[in-house]
Amino acid sequence: MKIKEIKAKNLNPEKFIEEKVQEIQKAVGKGLAINALSGGVDSSVVTALGHKALGERLKTYFINNGIMRHNEASLVTAQFKKLGIRIEVLDASNAFFSALKGVADPEEKREAITQTFYKKVFRDLVIKSKAKHLLQGTILTDVDETVAGIKRQHNVFEQIGIDPQEAFGYKIIEPLIQLRKDGVRKLGQALGLPESIFDRIPFPGPALAARVIGEVTPGKIKIVRKATTITEDELTDTKAFQYMAILHDDRVTGMRDGKRVFGNQIETRCWDSLDARTATPTRLPFEMLEKISGRIIKEIPEVVSVTYNITSKPPSTIEAV
Amino acid sequence: MKIKEIKAKNLNPEKFIEEKVQEIQKAVGKGLAINALSGGVDSSVVTALGHKALGERLKTYFINNGIMRHNEASLVTAQFKKLGIRIEVLDASNAFFSALKGVADPEEKREAITQTFYKKVFRDLVIKSKAKHLLQGTILTDVDETVAGIKRQHNVFEQIGIDPQEAFGYKIIEPLIQLRKDGVRKLGQALGLPESIFDRIPFPGPALAARVIGEVTPGKIKIVRKATTITEDELTDTKAFQYMAILHDDRVTGMRDGKRVFGNQIETRCWDSLDARTATPTRLPFEMLEKISGRIIKEIPEVVSVTYNITSKPPSTIEAV
Repeated sequence: MKIKEIKAKNLNPEKFIEEKVQEIQKAVGKGLAINALSGGVDSSVVTALGHKALGERLKTYFINNGIMRHNEASLVTAQFKKLGIRIEVLDASNAFFSALKGVADPEEKREAITQTFYKKVFRDLVIKSKAKHLLQGTILTDVDETVAGIKRQHNVFEQIGIDPQEAFGYKIIEPLIQLRKDGVRKLGQALGLPESIFDRIPFPGPALAARVIGEVTPGKIKIVRKATTITEDELTDTKAFQYMAILHDDRVTGMRDGKRVFGNQIETRCWDSLDARTATPTRLPFEMLEKISGRIIKEIPEVVSVTYNITSKPPSTIEAV
Repeated sequence: MKIKEIKAKNLNPEKFIEEKVQEIQKAVGKGLAINALSGGVDSSVVTALGHKALGERLKTYFINNGIMRHNEASLVTAQFKKLGIRIEVLDASNAFFSALKGVADPEEKREAITQTFYKKVFRDLVIKSKAKHLLQGTILTDVDETVAGIKRQHNVFEQIGIDPQEAFGYKIIEPLIQLRKDGVRKLGQALGLPESIFDRIPFPGPALAARVIGEVTPGKIKIVRKATTITEDELTDTKAFQYMAILHDDRVTGMRDGKRVFGNQIETRCWDSLDARTATPTRLPFEMLEKISGRIIKEIPEVVSVTYNITSKPPSTIEAV
């Protein structure tokens, strides 16, 4: 079934919210639903929309998968507490690191995370909570990229022939599937979310695992997490579409205390884009690049080299994994 | 024995040339010497100096090791022909690729190239030519970095306790060993070399093998050679100290013809430096970065991502390997 796109400029948020609230209520009936909030724009908007429809009958979880950004759980739960929405934090980091052990191929990494989320963590939650529905923030770009074979988005199933009910034992409701990122932001604003949420830069489903080239280990996540904090800190004022730090698997020669070291390299990316389908590197001032690089090599001793990506999408993609 | 540095500002090139010509003549006596010209500044200057001292009794070879830049052999031989110096081209690419097969560690790569040069190629040449001396363009920075354990320069032996006579069967003469890069350029100018030679950007002894992270193969050299041509083309007018393209071993996700590909990444570096001991990335205009990246992804289909290095030395080094 072809999904009918609603462009941001044609989106009437109030009408859309009303329709989706009814659809969600109809689908869930008198039962319960669950959803996982990562703190990203899409899952935040779906959380607000779902609570508008179901109130306390929607149980929202923040899954600490061990590959989130610094302080993510406390930031996100505090933000939603202000909105009157209670988030339960669930530690599942061991399950994710076990699934990622020894996996270097990007698609296999994405698949390992998908399987851990849907077959293990969500299924356990569904059983525990007696919910029959999972609400999630899949958007049209996720579907496009997965169907086209560009990138397997962790939240796309039906469009590639997987029936979630059969595969995982629960139904998936995707109220944002006709929208792209700009439409979702407009909706978030109409739902009363603060700008710090609806205008937050996109963050991938596989989280920091998408920011590590090669095998993902707790040690590598620690390095890329620090670099992510610095990069986000320094670039938040640019209002760029998205920015990130990527830890390479390659080692490069460097010097520390006058001696040769075989150190890590961090690649930074900062994108100008409207809807993520095409993107160009932001023309950052050189002083800003030098400041980011200077902080990374000072605050992360394992790193001896920092680069800035200068390629457009296509042929690049926004994320490296 | 501590080497006494001669700083470029204190160098009297005419006097230095006169002294070194006498020293070389005294060392070689009535015999023959050989040297290998890579086309870099140091080996070009030592070739000119050696021919001034020994004339036809110095046999100069261009060793095609398979890891040189595009058209290097014909460019270099043509330049020296104009100066009245005949260069013999020797194909040894099989020997080098065999030695590099399966070697991923930077120091082991450098060592494989060193051993192939000194134990195999030069020794064969010494035997064939009946020369007893090898003239080479080692400079003080090479010695410093090797002794300090920063980077094993292929042309440094005595300072780390290797006697070339014992190890390889011939003596090594190093007339430039008290100089750094800026002194060598001053000397090259005084020797009547054209600016295109004495002001050429530095190029490493291990050639393009120093520009490939991980194992060096003919296929990878082909990619990095193309990227090197583009980078040198676009950056020659900047008059920067050194610029280069590096092929990563890591693969990153990209898109070609609407499909996902798992492609190569090229890292570019452009350095401002006086003597290579410390260096900072050149603040290139963004338009120039975009042009380099645009040409690389257009002309090299294997590459989907290009970065620019933004780290100073230290903790980076100029080369990645």
